[in-house]
Amino acid sequence: MIPDALSQGQFDIVYNFLSLVIASQLFTALFLLISLPRILPRYRNAITVAIIVCGIAAYHYFRIFDSFKEAFVTDALGGAGTYTQAAGASFNEGYRYVDWLLTVPLLLVELVAVLALARKVQAQLLFKLVPAAALMIILGYPGEISGDTGTRGLFGLLSTLPFLYILYVLFVQLTKSLDLQPAGVRQTLSNLRWLLLLSWGVYPIAYLLPMLNIEGANAWVGLQIGYSVADILAKAVYALIIFKVARIKSFADDA
Amino acid sequence: MIPDALSQGQFDIVYNFLSLVIASQLFTALFLLISLPRILPRYRNAITVAIIVCGIAAYHYFRIFDSFKEAFVTDALGGAGTYTQAAGASFNEGYRYVDWLLTVPLLLVELVAVLALARKVQAQLLFKLVPAAALMIILGYPGEISGDTGTRGLFGLLSTLPFLYILYVLFVQLTKSLDLQPAGVRQTLSNLRWLLLLSWGVYPIAYLLPMLNIEGANAWVGLQIGYSVADILAKAVYALIIFKVARIKSFADDA
Amino acid sequence: MIPDALSQGQFDIVYNFLSLVIASQLFTALFLLISLPRILPRYRNAITVAIIVCGIAAYHYFRIFDSFKEAFVTDALGGAGTYTQAAGASFNEGYRYVDWLLTVPLLLVELVAVLALARKVQAQLLFKLVPAAALMIILGYPGEISGDTGTRGLFGLLSTLPFLYILYVLFVQLTKSLDLQPAGVRQTLSNLRWLLLLSWGVYPIAYLLPMLNIEGANAWVGLQIGYSVADILAKAVYALIIFKVARIKSFADDA
Amino acid sequence: MIPDALSQGQFDIVYNFLSLVIASQLFTALFLLISLPRILPRYRNAITVAIIVCGIAAYHYFRIFDSFKEAFVTDALGGAGTYTQAAGASFNEGYRYVDWLLTVPLLLVELVAVLALARKVQAQLLFKLVPAAALMIILGYPGEISGDTGTRGLFGLLSTLPFLYILYVLFVQLTKSLDLQPAGVRQTLSNLRWLLLLSWGVYPIAYLLPMLNIEGANAWVGLQIGYSVADILAKAVYALIIFKVARIKSFADDA
Amino acid sequence: MIPDALSQGQFDIVYNFLSLVIASQLFTALFLLISLPRILPRYRNAITVAIIVCGIAAYHYFRIFDSFKEAFVTDALGGAGTYTQAAGASFNEGYRYVDWLLTVPLLLVELVAVLALARKVQAQLLFKLVPAAALMIILGYPGEISGDTGTRGLFGLLSTLPFLYILYVLFVQLTKSLDLQPAGVRQTLSNLRWLLLLSWGVYPIAYLLPMLNIEGANAWVGLQIGYSVADILAKAVYALIIFKVARIKSFADDA
Ligand SMILES: CC1=C(/C=C/C(C)=C/C=C/C(C)=C/C=O)C(C)(C)CCC1
Ligand SMILES: CC1=C(/C=C/C(C)=C/C=C/C(C)=C/C=O)C(C)(C)CCC1
Ligand SMILES: CC1=C(/C=C/C(C)=C/C=C/C(C)=C/C=O)C(C)(C)CCC1
Ligand SMILES: CC1=C(/C=C/C(C)=C/C=C/C(C)=C/C=O)C(C)(C)CCC1
Ligand SMILES: CC1=C(/C=C/C(C)=C/C=C/C(C)=C/C=O)C(C)(C)CCC1
Ligand code: NA
Ligand code: NA
Ligand code: NA
Ligand code: NA
Ligand code: NA
Ligand code: NA
Ligand code: NA
Ligand code: NA
Ligand code: NA
Ligand code: NA
Repeated sequence: MIPDALSQGQFDIVYNFLSLVIASQLFTALFLLISLPRILPRYRNAITVAIIVCGIAAYHYFRIFDSFKEAFVTDALGGAGTYTQAAGASFNEGYRYVDWLLTVPLLLVELVAVLALARKVQAQLLFKLVPAAALMIILGYPGEISGDTGTRGLFGLLSTLPFLYILYVLFVQLTKSLDLQPAGVRQTLSNLRWLLLLSWGVYPIAYLLPMLNIEGANAWVGLQIGYSVADILAKAVYALIIFKVARIKSFADDA
Repeated sequence: MIPDALSQGQFDIVYNFLSLVIASQLFTALFLLISLPRILPRYRNAITVAIIVCGIAAYHYFRIFDSFKEAFVTDALGGAGTYTQAAGASFNEGYRYVDWLLTVPLLLVELVAVLALARKVQAQLLFKLVPAAALMIILGYPGEISGDTGTRGLFGLLSTLPFLYILYVLFVQLTKSLDLQPAGVRQTLSNLRWLLLLSWGVYPIAYLLPMLNIEGANAWVGLQIGYSVADILAKAVYALIIFKVARIKSFADDA
Repeated sequence: MIPDALSQGQFDIVYNFLSLVIASQLFTALFLLISLPRILPRYRNAITVAIIVCGIAAYHYFRIFDSFKEAFVTDALGGAGTYTQAAGASFNEGYRYVDWLLTVPLLLVELVAVLALARKVQAQLLFKLVPAAALMIILGYPGEISGDTGTRGLFGLLSTLPFLYILYVLFVQLTKSLDLQPAGVRQTLSNLRWLLLLSWGVYPIAYLLPMLNIEGANAWVGLQIGYSVADILAKAVYALIIFKVARIKSFADDA
Repeated sequence: MIPDALSQGQFDIVYNFLSLVIASQLFTALFLLISLPRILPRYRNAITVAIIVCGIAAYHYFRIFDSFKEAFVTDALGGAGTYTQAAGASFNEGYRYVDWLLTVPLLLVELVAVLALARKVQAQLLFKLVPAAALMIILGYPGEISGDTGTRGLFGLLSTLPFLYILYVLFVQLTKSLDLQPAGVRQTLSNLRWLLLLSWGVYPIAYLLPMLNIEGANAWVGLQIGYSVADILAKAVYALIIFKVARIKSFADDA
Repeated sequence: MIPDALSQGQFDIVYNFLSLVIASQLFTALFLLISLPRILPRYRNAITVAIIVCGIAAYHYFRIFDSFKEAFVTDALGGAGTYTQAAGASFNEGYRYVDWLLTVPLLLVELVAVLALARKVQAQLLFKLVPAAALMIILGYPGEISGDTGTRGLFGLLSTLPFLYILYVLFVQLTKSLDLQPAGVRQTLSNLRWLLLLSWGVYPIAYLLPMLNIEGANAWVGLQIGYSVADILAKAVYALIIFKVARIKSFADDA
């Protein structure tokens, strides 16, 4: 799956996207941390989880960035040549899955926490969503590291089942709870769900890329960019919208 | 004990588990730190100790991770070969024991602190638990670094004595105090003790692995994964449950 | 665009300007962070954004600094020789554009936030300014990395359109809102706009430098110094003036 | 004084003790920092100084640790050979003395501050203790770096004079003030002085080691372990006892 | 100006002084940061500036330290030989001047801020002091990097003019304002000015050293030590005295 060679242009674009994700996640986490005291205590748990999610992502992207730099090298002056796989170092695909294992369940916790539903309803929702999210990631991994298209397809399919279940809970079961939300945030919460659908949808699609007949390195570069953009949307932008909901609700509850 | 060679798959799985532990401990510590003000002052000591424990563990896993990377090397392109012991660098087994020496007594302090018993009862309990914990770790070390199965067995046995004593104090002597806890947390505290038993039990079992006739590298890989998972359970998950107890008690006391 | 060789003097002056920017951005961010509690809550959002902007810039300048050090090397004793492009490492021009993509829109958010206009007016202004700022940066990038003067000119021109639109919004449309600001800050806010015009104007001018017939390395060194000074003015000095406005308003509102 | 060679066992034990000191000092500092708000303002200065002392020690032990790693090297596979002095790098003995120069006077400030005596009495005590402490360290240094036993003995003797003076002030002059302390902390304060005596006493004894006829490397390894343990006692454990005193006094004063 | 060779003793003493400055500046900054809440809000600006000054200095000394380590190397076992200039790396003298450019004006801001004069008087003083300070540093730089004694002398002379002007403002014009200060701090403020004179005076004297006929390396070692000690006095010790003034004033104002 990992290409044997990248052109300088391909190397540079992956390099810059990875660095962009670091900055986005790290400073979203810092922004939320500094802004936390301006949120009512009852919504602070949601924002704290958002800080942790963006922080974990920043940690993993620091590692991914370094792994990428070590894994592809060139001898050309000014780096203006072809980058090939280095001796003794591999690009570690495991970081993304380790990251998702921790952050995907937490993203659902964030969402449920900002709704501030009754304790029991919260617990019931999370009891469905969190294990499904963990299962989805764990089932996807064997396919991702396998070189075989069949295996990739099979585990991709298995992983899609919990994925669909999560969407079902969010888009069918949760709909009733949305009606109980203050009028001022209903539209924003609905946007949030669509953002979730849009950004989460990128992952299975990016996962399919290597199975199409696109030329190796380009497919891989596309996959890295796709994951990077989706990670910014699904964590940083998502966190900022959650923050907005919490701010509006803080004003409303205070009045 | 340290294997002469690891396959890429073995190298990668240890690598990713070590990184997972870093993220888990570091961000559990940060989550608790950010959440500390939402806990009543009387339970803050327990949570502060939990932060310190997870922080110490994160520190040591950063070191263990770097030690592992330096200790096993390959020349194969893309890291796709056998990893052998590097010249001039050893995987330092000492980090784990140094970590346990500091954190295992603190884990017991955490537990006793969240119970918020009378000062005198607390002091009595810690007077028994802390020295027993330190003794357990110190007695285990000579066995761990010894290449000889007999020595390993002997010190393992000696170390088991304070281990059993700790379990006796926790599961027999402490049981009365549990009845004095508010109804709402009794179940959670009971779960906490079982988590402790389950996760602490991993260590002596992992310690036994090299004495069985499992093929070298696999036993060692299993031991690293076992220790990693147990460390997440015994420190991070444990801390989050303690946090939950403190949150529930904060609500109860406030009312 | 990147010169093949730098004299020691040229190397040193770029080196020291890059380090100066790191210190300026990092410690402006820290100063504002420490001073945040002395600002009324309603202006804290503006200052928080200013902290994030300076923080993002500090992050990117750390990377630019390291990239510069790796990209130009010499073998001369005491570094007293000509610095040439290193094998296998390039100076990454992408960092500046990634930085601007994140910070330029935020600088406009800062400005609008400190005015503390009605929510709706704010939203309308940002709806015009933020996309224009993003467009300006994205259009400039293909020209910056192209070696061809025609392409550089064309994209420079395209990028200038949103630039002029931003100036139009700031200097024509915003003028009415300024009359509603407290008397004590009107002058400062007017200075702020002029600082913005002055510092932002540096970027398109620096962009033109490589198209003039200045000898390669000197033009490039000039461009690096130009960008560095402009970044200090447009982010750190700008942030300190915004801070001053917020302080004065905090006093006024409190009375 | 610095040995030419260390066995792997000797290398590892020094290595692990140095890492243990880092963790102890760093996390004691963090624990106190997090706990600071739970102390009455009047005792915060003592605890703040304790945080700074442990922080300075952590900084120096990070440096000592790295210096040690660079200074002793081996080519043996898995590091399982003899470690000899590296080319171009020395183990820097200066760090300890630079550390003591800053921290030993501050340790006495800590002690005096937690007593919360009248301002004038405090000033008088510090006027005696601080210069004596600085003198003691400065006089010891020329002996430490000298290879000559006579010089070592002479400066050791000179350094002992201010040492004895400090003990005289603490154990004779300060005794009256102790009687004015609240009953609840008198015992703890007395323990504190004994801890001070016990831990500070290690330094002159460790200093003597190289003058005895112990085989080189072993004496030096003993000295490193001795300094490490004494530093944990004299800074981290000491700080925790000071913290306990401040906590008890905070309760007493509040009532 | 930079010596071709240093003995191990010379290398070690510069090395340890640079590390001492790092620890002094960094932990003074941290001490003040932790102590900030115990200062009345009206004096917090002075202390915040002091934190920033010590922080900037710590940043630059980290860089200077690393630059020094890279710039002088030896091949001798245990580093016990002559250190000569490395290939491809120079000791960067620019860091000090970049540091001064930022911190010297801020040191004067600190002083004026702690006096808490009327806003207008403050503004007038800073309008004189800050540009003079910047001019002084900028004029000194061309002399510092020049190998020519005449140039050094000339720019040294030019730089002395704003230096004398600053002293004139501080020791003649400011004297009246001192009489308006509370009795309890007048002495301390007077000490502070003398400390300023004493420490700032070191810089022009150290600047002269290379023009005397002292043997190269020794003059340079003396200059590094001189700058290091002066930087500790002029920033860290100075900050602690400003802190003391602010503390005393906080008590006085509160009563
Ligand atoms: C359905 C499916 C997948 C889904 C992955 C998802 C939905 C990941 C979401 C990640 C997020 C939200 C990251 C945070 O930023 C896999 C595992 C690619 C395997 C193929 C099938
Ligand atoms: C009984 C026994 C042992 C017990 C170790 C334990 C119980 C360690 C607990 C560690 C924890 C809780 C770490 C924190 O996360 C040893 C030393 C392996 C030696 C063999 C016998
Ligand atoms: C008009 C124009 C440009 C404008 C760039 C600007 C205005 C950048 C502002 C950057 C800031 C404010 C950075 C923050 O410090 C480009 C892209 C150079 C391309 C050429 C035409
Ligand atoms: C008397 C004496 C000495 C005393 C050293 C002491 C007392 C050091 C204390 C250090 C502490 C407390 C460090 C902080 O953790 C020296 C210099 C070894 C030289 C020999 C004579
Ligand atoms: C008069 C004079 C100088 C003065 C330098 C000063 C006064 C520097 C102060 C630095 C401080 C206070 C640093 C902070 O710690 C120079 C430039 C050496 C050049 C020679 C003439
Ligand atoms: Na690379
Ligand atoms: Na890999
Ligand atoms: Na490796
Ligand atoms: Na080892
Ligand atoms: Na270079
Ligand atoms: Na590049
Ligand atoms: Na070594
Ligand atoms: Na040395
Ligand atoms: Na060196
Ligand atoms: Na240089």
